[in-house]
Order: sequence, then structure tokens, then C-alpha cells
Amino acid sequence: MKKSALILMLLFGFSLVANAKNIEVYPTNWWTGMKTNSIQLLIRSTDGLFASDKISINYPGITVVKTHSFSNQKYIAVDIVIAPETVAGDVTIELNQKEGKQKIKWPLYNRRSGNGTEYAQGVTSSDFIDLIMVDRFSNGDVTNDKVKGLRDQSLNRNEMFDRHGGDLQGVMNNLDYIQGLGVTTLWFTPIMENDMEKRTEHGYAITNHYKIDKRYGDDALYGKLSDQLHKRGMKLIFDAVYNHIGSFHFLELDPPANDWVHRWPTYTQTNFREIPLFDPYGTKSDKKRMSDGWFDKIMPDINQGNPFMANFIIQNCIWHIEKFGIDGIRLDTYTYNDLDFANRCNKAIMDEFPKMTFFGEIMVHGVANQAYFEQNNMDVSFKSNLQSVVDFQALYYGIIPALTEPFGWKEGVSRLYYTLSSDFLSKNPMQKVLLLDNHDEPRFFSVVGENVEKQKMGFQWLLTCRGIPQLYYGSEVLMKGFKNPDGLVRADFPGGWKEDSKNAFTGKGMTDDEKSTQDLVRKLGNFRKNSSALKTGKMMHYVPVDGLYVYFRYDENQTIMCVMNTSNSEKEIDFQKYDERTTGFTSAKNVISEESLNTSNKTTIPAMKMWVLELKK
Amino acid sequence: MKKSALILMLLFGFSLVANAKNIEVYPTNWWTGMKTNSIQLLIRSTDGLFASDKISINYPGITVVKTHSFSNQKYIAVDIVIAPETVAGDVTIELNQKEGKQKIKWPLYNRRSGNGTEYAQGVTSSDFIDLIMVDRFSNGDVTNDKVKGLRDQSLNRNEMFDRHGGDLQGVMNNLDYIQGLGVTTLWFTPIMENDMEKRTEHGYAITNHYKIDKRYGDDALYGKLSDQLHKRGMKLIFDAVYNHIGSFHFLELDPPANDWVHRWPTYTQTNFREIPLFDPYGTKSDKKRMSDGWFDKIMPDINQGNPFMANFIIQNCIWHIEKFGIDGIRLDTYTYNDLDFANRCNKAIMDEFPKMTFFGEIMVHGVANQAYFEQNNMDVSFKSNLQSVVDFQALYYGIIPALTEPFGWKEGVSRLYYTLSSDFLSKNPMQKVLLLDNHDEPRFFSVVGENVEKQKMGFQWLLTCRGIPQLYYGSEVLMKGFKNPDGLVRADFPGGWKEDSKNAFTGKGMTDDEKSTQDLVRKLGNFRKNSSALKTGKMMHYVPVDGLYVYFRYDENQTIMCVMNTSNSEKEIDFQKYDERTTGFTSAKNVISEESLNTSNKTTIPAMKMWVLELKK
Repeated sequence: MKKSALILMLLFGFSLVANAKNIEVYPTNWWTGMKTNSIQLLIRSTDGLFASDKISINYPGITVVKTHSFSNQKYIAVDIVIAPETVAGDVTIELNQKEGKQKIKWPLYNRRSGNGTEYAQGVTSSDFIDLIMVDRFSNGDVTNDKVKGLRDQSLNRNEMFDRHGGDLQGVMNNLDYIQGLGVTTLWFTPIMENDMEKRTEHGYAITNHYKIDKRYGDDALYGKLSDQLHKRGMKLIFDAVYNHIGSFHFLELDPPANDWVHRWPTYTQTNFREIPLFDPYGTKSDKKRMSDGWFDKIMPDINQGNPFMANFIIQNCIWHIEKFGIDGIRLDTYTYNDLDFANRCNKAIMDEFPKMTFFGEIMVHGVANQAYFEQNNMDVSFKSNLQSVVDFQALYYGIIPALTEPFGWKEGVSRLYYTLSSDFLSKNPMQKVLLLDNHDEPRFFSVVGENVEKQKMGFQWLLTCRGIPQLYYGSEVLMKGFKNPDGLVRADFPGGWKEDSKNAFTGKGMTDDEKSTQDLVRKLGNFRKNSSALKTGKMMHYVPVDGLYVYFRYDENQTIMCVMNTSNSEKEIDFQKYDERTTGFTSAKNVISEESLNTSNKTTIPAMKMWVLELKK
Repeated sequence: MKKSALILMLLFGFSLVANAKNIEVYPTNWWTGMKTNSIQLLIRSTDGLFASDKISINYPGITVVKTHSFSNQKYIAVDIVIAPETVAGDVTIELNQKEGKQKIKWPLYNRRSGNGTEYAQGVTSSDFIDLIMVDRFSNGDVTNDKVKGLRDQSLNRNEMFDRHGGDLQGVMNNLDYIQGLGVTTLWFTPIMENDMEKRTEHGYAITNHYKIDKRYGDDALYGKLSDQLHKRGMKLIFDAVYNHIGSFHFLELDPPANDWVHRWPTYTQTNFREIPLFDPYGTKSDKKRMSDGWFDKIMPDINQGNPFMANFIIQNCIWHIEKFGIDGIRLDTYTYNDLDFANRCNKAIMDEFPKMTFFGEIMVHGVANQAYFEQNNMDVSFKSNLQSVVDFQALYYGIIPALTEPFGWKEGVSRLYYTLSSDFLSKNPMQKVLLLDNHDEPRFFSVVGENVEKQKMGFQWLLTCRGIPQLYYGSEVLMKGFKNPDGLVRADFPGGWKEDSKNAFTGKGMTDDEKSTQDLVRKLGNFRKNSSALKTGKMMHYVPVDGLYVYFRYDENQTIMCVMNTSNSEKEIDFQKYDERTTGFTSAKNVISEESLNTSNKTTIPAMKMWVLELKK
């Protein structure tokens, strides 16, 4: 084996090679006992050409159905079927290369134990998600801060778009802290290899779908983290990117054929406009540009209409879930996908993992626009099978105006009321992921003008409204910043680096405001864990009046009354006004302050204040 | 017969009386040959009590099915069936009053000729509606400006909420002008009797559903106007008010029972919030207040759940259509109705007049909110049968921001684009009524800061976008004014009164801007009459870019390209950019200026300008 080939193979993470010469097989392995047992292997020779697409596999239970060749003779694809009774082992694949016959071993594993119970269990409204950018959370292993051979050799914590050194070990070191907040579920921005020249901190420019980025750790460490989470009763979300790849992905550097990504005569960016997809008056050109235009010059747009590319992506999703013990899926840039492909991919995953849940990034404006991309109550010709969405409507047209805009008929907290009422368009509003901020949005604390009380109101809303609450790492300690121009929304979690003077894990150097906000999240996050009303109860809300918005979460065991006064004056609360939900109760205990109120008496809530009250008999 | 009784009977317009004593029958007549032949007569004695609800009708073809009495013994109700073969004539009804037996004659007419062809033909996107407040358009008969016996004796053109004297004769005198604008259809705010103490100019506080307000004319004059319209090939819209009556309506002054209108322990106004009607999280109390609360202290809220009241309203609608030759129906305050009742009423009308079209006043915020009240593409438990709506979304979130808000991703003309794209929620977007202003909204000319070019852009949009365009009287001559606080949106049409120094009918005293705007409406209104693309063609629009919005109306015979430059700088127009619609054409003729452009060449549209171009081969 040539040295250069060895390096390449190491680079591409392909380890189980028999006497093959620079051969890669994707998926890199499979498992016995999967429902998904018709697999299309994509076989790549990094330095030789295939003489023909004829191959032979001599392994009990495995049948070769069909082989395919491509204009780029470095690739072939092989359709195989793995019979249910097939036993795990190394499958030998015999290939015909121009230089002669080659053999490669391809592993077939037994599935991990606990399948379907310990993981792939779905993420629901009983959960509380923490979204973490691994590079920015905690540096648990300084030896992987820069990795030789990778293109991005930046390492500078003062530059928001350079590497900072955070890694999976850093997350693992701080699971007690995270779980202590009441968080049940971790979502990382993608951690697959992003061997790009710069801006690799976010992870959405994947260059190898079968490899953990070494700056975060490796397969084994990620698997270990997943196991630790599951042992803690926690869950793991996979951030799946169907729409594009990084421009240094081997499928772009050395594509099997020209049409694996969308090609344009000149570089054409997407128009970022979802409307032509459902607009009765839309044009074909606007629609094509939306779906087939590139998200960015360095992110080629996957041609999901190419069946080989489609299979590559779908199989990778299933592989990732099975390999790493995934419980829920966040789907990146969902609106930019070929939606028929997206449906097909979702279905393939649900067929394999029936309890799996999904939520899509649908960053649009308009409740019907959002609903179009999820399972909805609309008679439209395209029927999405996506269970739910990141609820940007409840962010942009909900909690942000509620706390930043003066009250009006449809302004201020009325917008939140309007937006939530539009849930009648959605099949699964309880599965919507609520957020105050994320890696693409300004920190909520900055949005509300660094008003601590408003940030606390935001968290109280986040943890009591219908849906799945999602925290963005560090917002619980008042991290701030805007996205533009400096990317400060991706700043480091204080205390994640040894040299940090402030440490939000231990409390060292934190201000009282930071501590009290962190305490509020911790208190409510943990209260929520045992609150059937907040986790799975129904919701009821009254028409907001003069900035005062009152809503309830309730079931037969518990009633939580949430009072949000967004006005600049105190407001009288007459519990009798809300008798559809308050009848039969005599007191109301504030979950945060632990004070009790007699519900027979009128009381007064201060200006710009929120109360979460548990009603008691 | 007592003299007082005679006066009362005259007042209530009941003319065909035999030996009855102060008896009123509603409906005041019916017709042979109607599909609606099960009629519930409401019989009222204004000065005596009924001894029993037993009555007798001895008329071939008429069967009494059931009679009903009420806590107020001045009323009985009688369910009759009129057999198909029944011959027209005076039906004698024998009643048992405490003072003795009474007889009353109730006329059964032959239907008007031309039924179903000359009228009740529906109003469609081929039409162009002019909305007129009759009191404010033209005073054709000064003798009816004040009518003795009516409560409102105001008459002062300087006060916006006093009577001004306009009437049906004034409309009739100016049909040439109206039709000359390209208008095909008249819609009057209600002209049924409003015998209220003040604010009677709008007509929505009806006190007698069977009587034209004498200040406008009478039954005969209204019928004559209808006939004249139909002879001109024009149409007539009925503004139907299901939701409330005026507080001086006899059904409120002397109600048959307490529950014909909604009663509250203390006066309770509607919350004007439609959301609780469909909100999955809504409360019963908010919903009840929306539907059953009163629109205004002087407008009791009809209890449509009372079957007698429901029948009274439904029969009146059918009666009005048949009596006056109505072609289309505008439904007032639609969201405030009992929606099941509204469906039932609509269906009863459609059963009788299959070509009838309806549009509801759905003054809400949100495309899905609006769609809920019409035939829609949403899987919701309540299915409205209302064909379409006054498209307030296209006003509030469409043409107004397009011309008054700087362009942004979702601001300015992008809002118009967003709103129109949401037509996928509606079954009949071509039936939506487009408007720039009406009697409840500020005049568009004032909204756009009295910018003549913007007003002209508004009209060009109004007359070219999908749907049914609706003009508000006088906006074509730059009438201006805001609703609050002075009601100036209801000012008089210039030239409608003999003493007017300015006359928009003749052009006397008009400014150049007023004339050129009127000319634009006239030119485009008449062009539209012969434009299959604008009347019934499909619509296609491109994603707006930097304030430039381009849309097309087209069919196999004609293509109209509309270019709206809402930005403050001129924009290049490259016809090839829009090749899905421009291919095959060589020139573009401006419908207003009549200039032609070569579509092979790029051209430039000035800042804040709209072009309506007919493409030519």
C-alpha cells in the first residue's frame, strides 16, 4: 500500500481494510437485524479506476441485486440485500479495478443493546433541550484544538469565526451542570467532519458524513457520551443536514457524476424564499432557485433527485442514529430541501425507528407558511410528514414582541396570543420546539435590551408554554450578543476553558443577575420535570387585555396558571375572571418565589413581571 | 279601524289590509313558484293580544303546519307550506285576538320576470363594484331629506354624523357617470329603515327589515333603480346584516320573548376578538363574548340560536333578493354571527338562488384567521360555506404597506407578495373583494399621504390583481379623510348636491390631479371590461426584489404584465427575466399612457410608479 494512500485512508476514517487498495465503502458498516436491509453501497477508489461494476460478495445472507457505474470510474454503487437471519461478521467484497482485482472487508455488526428502549425513543414536550455549539462550550481536551491535516488551522478565542477548542470531552465533563438545570436532551450543531478552510465552528459544511470531526473527538468518544446521557436518563438529538455539503466533501471534490449536486451556469444562490413552493401564483424559476440554488458558495446544494445521492443521505441518517444512539432529529434548512425527498427520508427513518421524533428548521414568516412544511391541517397537494418545527413564529411573532413592543390590538403580547392560536393549522403543536435564541439568532438577553426581568419572563414562558422548550447554551447566565456583524451569539460558555476568570459551572465571578437567572432556569427546569401539566397538559389562554396575558397548563392532576404582565403598570389579578380554570382552587403558589396567594382575593402583579403559579385546592 | 292603528300600519308599510286591526305579517308577502315554500309567518298585533295561536287559512295550495305562541301575546308564528301549483292572490288569514276574530290579507305574488337571468346572477371577478353610502352620494330628492315621524331629524352637511340628504334618486340620476367609470355593480350600505335617534347615515342599525328608509326613497324607487341597473347590464349588491338590529327595531322595543336577542346581566360589548372561535386554547367565556356580546349599545345582538329569530332573518334575506332583484350579497360583521346559523342562512339563499355570490366582512388580522370564515383549504371542524370575503388582508398587509412602508424582506411590497401567496388557504381567491378603502377605513389617498402617484398605483393594483375590485365612491376623485375622529371618510361626493361648487360628475372645479386620477380609473375600469386576462385570467407573480414587484394576469388570449416599482429609485426592467410569461411577445403597450415598449430591450421604470402593460406578439 502506498504511503499517500494510507494517509488518505486515515484521513477518511476508513479503518477496516483488508487487502484493498485505497477503497472506501459507504455506509462504512451496517448491522444485522435492521428493517432497513436493502442497502446501496457507494464504493470509491481514491486512486484507481474500476474496470467494471461487476463485484462479488460471498457472505451467507447477503445478495447482490444490482451494480451501477458512473462517469467517474472511481466509483461504483452496489445494491445489496441483507437477509434477516444474516450473522454479523466481516463481509468480503471483491472488486474489479483496472489494476486488478481487489478485496475489501466491510463489517456487519450486531445492533447495540437497548435498541428502541434506551435510545431512538423520541424527544417530546416532557423534555427540555439544551442546544450546544461544541466548539464554544467547554474545552475538555486541549490536544485536539488544532488537528494536523485539517484545512482550518485557526485557533483564537478572540475571533468569533475561528476555532475555540471546545469538544465532546468538555460537554462530558459538565453533564452534571447541564442536567442540573433540568435539561433532559442535548442537541449539538453538527459534529461530523467539517474539513473546510474557515468558519468551521458551526458544523453545517460537512465533508465526511461518516466521521466525527477530530477537533471534537472521535466515534468512540461520541458513542461514550451518548451512553452516558442514556444512563442519566437523558437524550441525544442529531442535527441532520440533508440540503448541502461542504465544498471540500469528497463527493464534491471528486464527484461520481456531475449531477450529485445542483449545477448552475454561474454561481446561483438560493433566493431564501419558501413562498414559491406553495404559492398558487409562484413561478417555476423562483421555485427552482429556492430549492436548487446554493445556500452558500462553500455549500454545494445536494441534488436529492439523484437517486444515488438520495440513498447516500438516507442511509447515513439511519447509520448515524443506530451508530450513536440518537433519540431525536433536528433537520437543518428544511425548507430548502426537495420536499418529496425529505418526506422519503423521514419515512425511511420512521420505518426503522418508530418512536423517533423530528423537528425541522423552518425559518419563515407566517403561520401558514410554517405549517406547510410540517404535518398540518391544510388541504394542500403536498403533504409533509414532518412531525414538527422549530417554532420561529412563536419567537419572531410571539415572545419577542410580547416583551419588546408596546401592547396593542395585535401588537406586543397580542402577537404571542395570535401566533399560539394559529396552532389549529398544525397537527402536533405540542411537538413544536420553543426557543428564545439559537446559534443563528441574537441572544434573547440582547433582544430585550439586557433587561434581566424580561429575560426571566422569557424563560418562564419558554418552560411553561406548549411545546418542547429549547435552551441555547449559556443564555441561562445572561450570555448576550448579536449575530451581526461579529457572531457574538456564538461566544464561549464562561468557565468552559481553564483560563476563564468567570465560571458559570461553579458560580465563580458571576453577577447576582446571572446567578438569579441561572437559579430561575434551574428551579423551573426541575419543577417542570415533575409537572404533568407543563409536560403534557392542555393549554388554555384568555384574550390579552392591556398587556396582561394569562394562560393555563392543566390536566386532571395539576393546574398551572401563568400570568404575564407586559405592561409598564401593575395590574389587578382577579382569579374569578379566569373561572374556567380557577374554580375549585383556593390558593396559588408561585413556583419560583414559593409565595402563596389566596385565590379568593384580588391581587396585583407588578409591571413587567411574570408569575408561574401552581393552583392548590 | 282606529285612526292610530291606520297610522301605525302605514308607518310599517303594510298596505294590503282587509278587515284586520293593527296586524303586521312578516314576511310582508311571498311569491308562488319559490323553492323556499315552507314559510314561518311572524304575526304581530300592535295593540291587541292573541287569544290563541289558532289561525285558519283557507287558500288553495296553502297548508298550515303548526302555530306557535310567545310569552308576549302580541305575537304568534305560523308555519305554512305553499304548494308548487299555488296561484298568486291575496291570502286571507283568520286570527283569534282577545277582542275577537280578525282577518288579514297577505299577498302571494307571481315572481318577477327574468328571475335567475336578469338578476340573482352573482357578482364575479369580471365585475367592478362601487360602494356608495347613499346619504353621501347625491341628493336627488330634497323632499325626503327629513321625514316626519322618524327619530333622527338632523340635516347638516357640515356634521359627518348628521343626515346629508343623499338618496336613491341621486344615485339613479348619476348612473351614466358611475357606469362610465367601468363600474358594473353597485353596493349600498344598508338602505332599510334605520329609525334611530342619531348616526343613521350608515344604515347598519336596521329597525324594519321590510321597509326602505324613506330618506332614501321607497320600495318602488329601489325596485326601479334595480331594474335600471339590470337594463344597463349592471348588478346590485345587498348589504345583509344578520348580526344585530337597531335598538328601535320593533323586535327589540316589543320583543315576542326575551331571548330574541342576547341578554346579559349588564351591558356587555363583544370583545371584537375572532380568535376564540377557532383557537385550540380559547376559552368559552371569550368565545361567548365575541359572538353574543353586543356590537354597540344601540345594536342588540341577534340571538340566531332562537329558531324564530333565525327564520325571520333568513326569510328576510330571500325576500329582499326576490323583491329587489339582488345579484350579490355582502354580509356585514360576519365574524360576530353564530357561524352555524350563518352557514344555514347562506345555504337557504343558495338553494333558492344557485348563482348568488356572497362575500363577508371579515375584518381580522391574519391570513388563516380570515380563511377560517370562508370556504377554505383547512381541515377545521367548522366548515364555512361562505364563498369569499372582503380581502382586508390584501389591504392591511398588502397594498397599504406596499406603498407606505420601505421595502424589506417581509416589509413594503413584500407584504403584498406574502399575503397574496397565502391564497392557497382559500377555495375561491378570485371571488375575494379587493379594496383600497371603504366607509370604515381611512380614504386611501390620505393613507398614502395624499400622494397622487401612489393613489394611482393603488387603483392600478385594484383593477389588475386577482379578485373583484371595489371602489369606494369618490376615491376616484381623490376624496380624502380619516375615520377618526371626524368620520371624514363619509364625506359627500362633490357635485352630488345642487349647491356644490365642485362637481366630479361634470368636471367642474376639479383639479388636474383629480381629473387625471378619475381618468385613470375610467380608462382602466373600461379596459378591464374587455380584458379576459384581468377579469378571469390566472395570476403569476415573481418574488419582489428591492421594491420592484412584477405580476401577470393571463389566459390563452391575453397577457397583462403589471410592474410596480415601490422603491425610491428607478429600476431596470429586463423582460427576459420574466420569460415564463413574456416569451413569444415582442412589445408591451401601457394601458394608461398607450405607449409601447419593445420587449427585446431593457427599459427603466421611474421610482414609485406602476405600469399596466398589455403584451403583444
